[in-house]
Amino acid sequence: MFLAGLALYAQQPESSSAVHSYINQNQPMILHEFEQLLAIPNIASDTPNIEKNAALLLQMLEKRGLKAELLRVENAPPAILAQGTADPALHTVTFYAHYDGQPVQKADWKQDPWQPTIVPGATIADQRIYARSASDDKAAIVGLISALDALKSTNKRPSVNIKFLFEGEEEAGSPHLEQILSRYHEKLQSDLFVICDGPIYQNGQPDLMFGSRGVVTVQITAFGPNRPLHSGHYGNWAPNPIVELADLLTKLRNTEGEILIPHFYDPVRPLSALEKDALQKLPDLDGQLKNDFAIGRTEGRGKLPEEIMKPGLNLDRIEGGGSGPNPANAIPSSATAYIDFRLVPNQTPAIVKQQLKAYLQQLGYFVVDRPPTVTERLQQAKILQVRWGAGYPPQRTALDAPVSQAFIRAARTVAGDSLVLMPTLGGSTPSFLFEQQFNQPVIGLPIANFDNNQHAANENIKLENLWRGIELYSGIYAHLGEFWR
Amino acid sequence: MFLAGLALYAQQPESSSAVHSYINQNQPMILHEFEQLLAIPNIASDTPNIEKNAALLLQMLEKRGLKAELLRVENAPPAILAQGTADPALHTVTFYAHYDGQPVQKADWKQDPWQPTIVPGATIADQRIYARSASDDKAAIVGLISALDALKSTNKRPSVNIKFLFEGEEEAGSPHLEQILSRYHEKLQSDLFVICDGPIYQNGQPDLMFGSRGVVTVQITAFGPNRPLHSGHYGNWAPNPIVELADLLTKLRNTEGEILIPHFYDPVRPLSALEKDALQKLPDLDGQLKNDFAIGRTEGRGKLPEEIMKPGLNLDRIEGGGSGPNPANAIPSSATAYIDFRLVPNQTPAIVKQQLKAYLQQLGYFVVDRPPTVTERLQQAKILQVRWGAGYPPQRTALDAPVSQAFIRAARTVAGDSLVLMPTLGGSTPSFLFEQQFNQPVIGLPIANFDNNQHAANENIKLENLWRGIELYSGIYAHLGEFWR
Repeated sequence: MFLAGLALYAQQPESSSAVHSYINQNQPMILHEFEQLLAIPNIASDTPNIEKNAALLLQMLEKRGLKAELLRVENAPPAILAQGTADPALHTVTFYAHYDGQPVQKADWKQDPWQPTIVPGATIADQRIYARSASDDKAAIVGLISALDALKSTNKRPSVNIKFLFEGEEEAGSPHLEQILSRYHEKLQSDLFVICDGPIYQNGQPDLMFGSRGVVTVQITAFGPNRPLHSGHYGNWAPNPIVELADLLTKLRNTEGEILIPHFYDPVRPLSALEKDALQKLPDLDGQLKNDFAIGRTEGRGKLPEEIMKPGLNLDRIEGGGSGPNPANAIPSSATAYIDFRLVPNQTPAIVKQQLKAYLQQLGYFVVDRPPTVTERLQQAKILQVRWGAGYPPQRTALDAPVSQAFIRAARTVAGDSLVLMPTLGGSTPSFLFEQQFNQPVIGLPIANFDNNQHAANENIKLENLWRGIELYSGIYAHLGEFWR
Repeated sequence: MFLAGLALYAQQPESSSAVHSYINQNQPMILHEFEQLLAIPNIASDTPNIEKNAALLLQMLEKRGLKAELLRVENAPPAILAQGTADPALHTVTFYAHYDGQPVQKADWKQDPWQPTIVPGATIADQRIYARSASDDKAAIVGLISALDALKSTNKRPSVNIKFLFEGEEEAGSPHLEQILSRYHEKLQSDLFVICDGPIYQNGQPDLMFGSRGVVTVQITAFGPNRPLHSGHYGNWAPNPIVELADLLTKLRNTEGEILIPHFYDPVRPLSALEKDALQKLPDLDGQLKNDFAIGRTEGRGKLPEEIMKPGLNLDRIEGGGSGPNPANAIPSSATAYIDFRLVPNQTPAIVKQQLKAYLQQLGYFVVDRPPTVTERLQQAKILQVRWGAGYPPQRTALDAPVSQAFIRAARTVAGDSLVLMPTLGGSTPSFLFEQQFNQPVIGLPIANFDNNQHAANENIKLENLWRGIELYSGIYAHLGEFWR
């Protein structure tokens, strides 16, 4: 399909004008391949279709002369590994993306989620393609492969050995990724892992992510009487678990986001000068976001990017006294808070668990990890049940590491001064798995527009973001090795 | 039906031995009448059956030579008023009870709730009759009427003019009681109102209640972003409404039941010497109740009866962040606490509302009584939505009032030193309505066993409690006027 006017899509830095021309001329072919991939349903649990996705990806990769193979572990969608002939003089970089997508609620979509549809926007730059995984994460896959073609058209060779790793169950929580990385450790060896997933900064400029926060969840339950008691007959006397829990929460964290658990911040690695500098230089979007979310104040003193550099203690849910239209006037038997901790280097889930336990005991609580027995309830004045959920550690690659500096310089050959440097993603990703398995750095390189409806109905990517993404990938291929010594 | 052994039911004070003999000899007849009444379904909204209850009650009352009539207001079950020929030289006392019952979940019952069933206990004193309203409140009705017969059998006349008022929708919240009292004000004029409802003290001894606490409910909602936000990307920055709410709760009330709202206790009428003395003399059941409820501590420093003499701020429910198996790791849009205040003289719902509002404003909150607008959310740092529910004031009759002292002496002719004097019920009843409409004292005179499964499945009354109740009522009829000058 020919899309008039797409050639106008961007002001290009000079260094990539040849790549830019290639993209301009080949948009129909790239879109055709993208649409073919988007047309195959890709829920991780839909094995026949997942295998069709994998087969098409193998074919796309082999067409480029790459050696491609399926990495299989039991009861999991295959991951796809592809690579060219390696030059031992060059660094090796694995670019990771995933080809599976979030489940869909078809009724919420304006179209079939697997019938990719191009919708014109108010401006050419706002033209979008709608489909499940359009942005998360098939655009990255098509972009990474097309960037190889674009670079080849300029007769320039990549400056690093390139591997692609495409996972098939990221949206199901990557339950087998650790096993895949471990079983195929040799084949996946690299000097750097690049995570091509997620949206770019809210100002629309390309960005690099140098890590993500860890996470660990916990449920804390306070107890009252063994059955709800009439609040008139027993209030003021039978301990109220909601009051107990509220009191505890204010001792864990204040309304400015500061965590009050002793020594909690001790393991936190201070920001480096470069990280501080990067934060300073980030475009200030606080006003725009406060407006968007209708909030009249923010917690903490810093702007959003500064605040998410810190560890966090988030209250995700609280419940006690049942639900439904009419609460009984009764003292409930228990009340529960659902918390997630966000962790930064060098915190770990194990350290946080130990710190919280010690603090709760210091506050005089008797702590159990299952419902208290009657004897315990009778003998202990203050009991908490503490149930830890899943968790994993943070990962952050130093901004002043040679590989980071080289990566930034390579990206700037395309993005120029607009490049946004994020020392960490606020959210949590399993990027630590790569760091842990290979003891090598990890950098995040997203291309999708911020407003892509990721995980929701009417997922989309701006075509502009795909074209700029291909250029960015080409720039990294071409120049990373030059700057990385 | 003949129940062997029931004659052994209690050690009787001498004063009522004639009444005691009457009851012993007439148990089968009393039970027969009780069972007939219990056999008619009595949910306030079940009009045909409610009318059958009323018709049977009219018949029972007229059989005793009383003038009985139905007091009707629109769309409400009839109340029944009955009285004999009044002696203008005597005080007039209205004994109130209700003939409707709580709705039933038949599946939870061991039998049909309207097929009264006598079940033998481990001892004769534990023999019970099971049926809806067996204790709450048809036992009181049958007891009040049978006490007339018992007194008559001794050839003694009541020492006061007796009226009976039997309400038909107490368990639906008495929505028309105020209207009934107002419309039939003249007919209902009395010097004292006696509320024959509720269970007796947990030690099983008869008790008198000299008031009940008032109540007013309120929902308080704190706000975060206008939609749930990813806690990794926005935590520490977007205000967390659960944290805000927990912080507020600790400023309203501490874990010892003390209310921190300025001037909250100012209107509280100090306990009189007699009230303090009555509290001192109450049997100490704290240990037994802590065991029963499996609690290792109590709030406050006082024993249960002392604590419920104070006003209370009870957390009945808290919610925020949804429900279901897996909480999202997200900052919720709002969090809500459901509170009930219990009030004592001379507090009123109006005073509490004003105090809370002033305090919230002093704490820096912008307070609204409906969801805040977008403009308000953007302009105000801290917003609370405060929604008041229904409420009514407390009622308490002074222990040292002549009527109270006379009532105690009259009750002691039957109960002797075992009589328990409760300066107030912890719960809330509309006893203030009688005080307010007639400007006359109100005293509570319960007879049901504490463990009667009131409002629940398998409601029951110990037969022992019915027999002792009849004696107690007879004693009041016979002696109240003698002591009340």
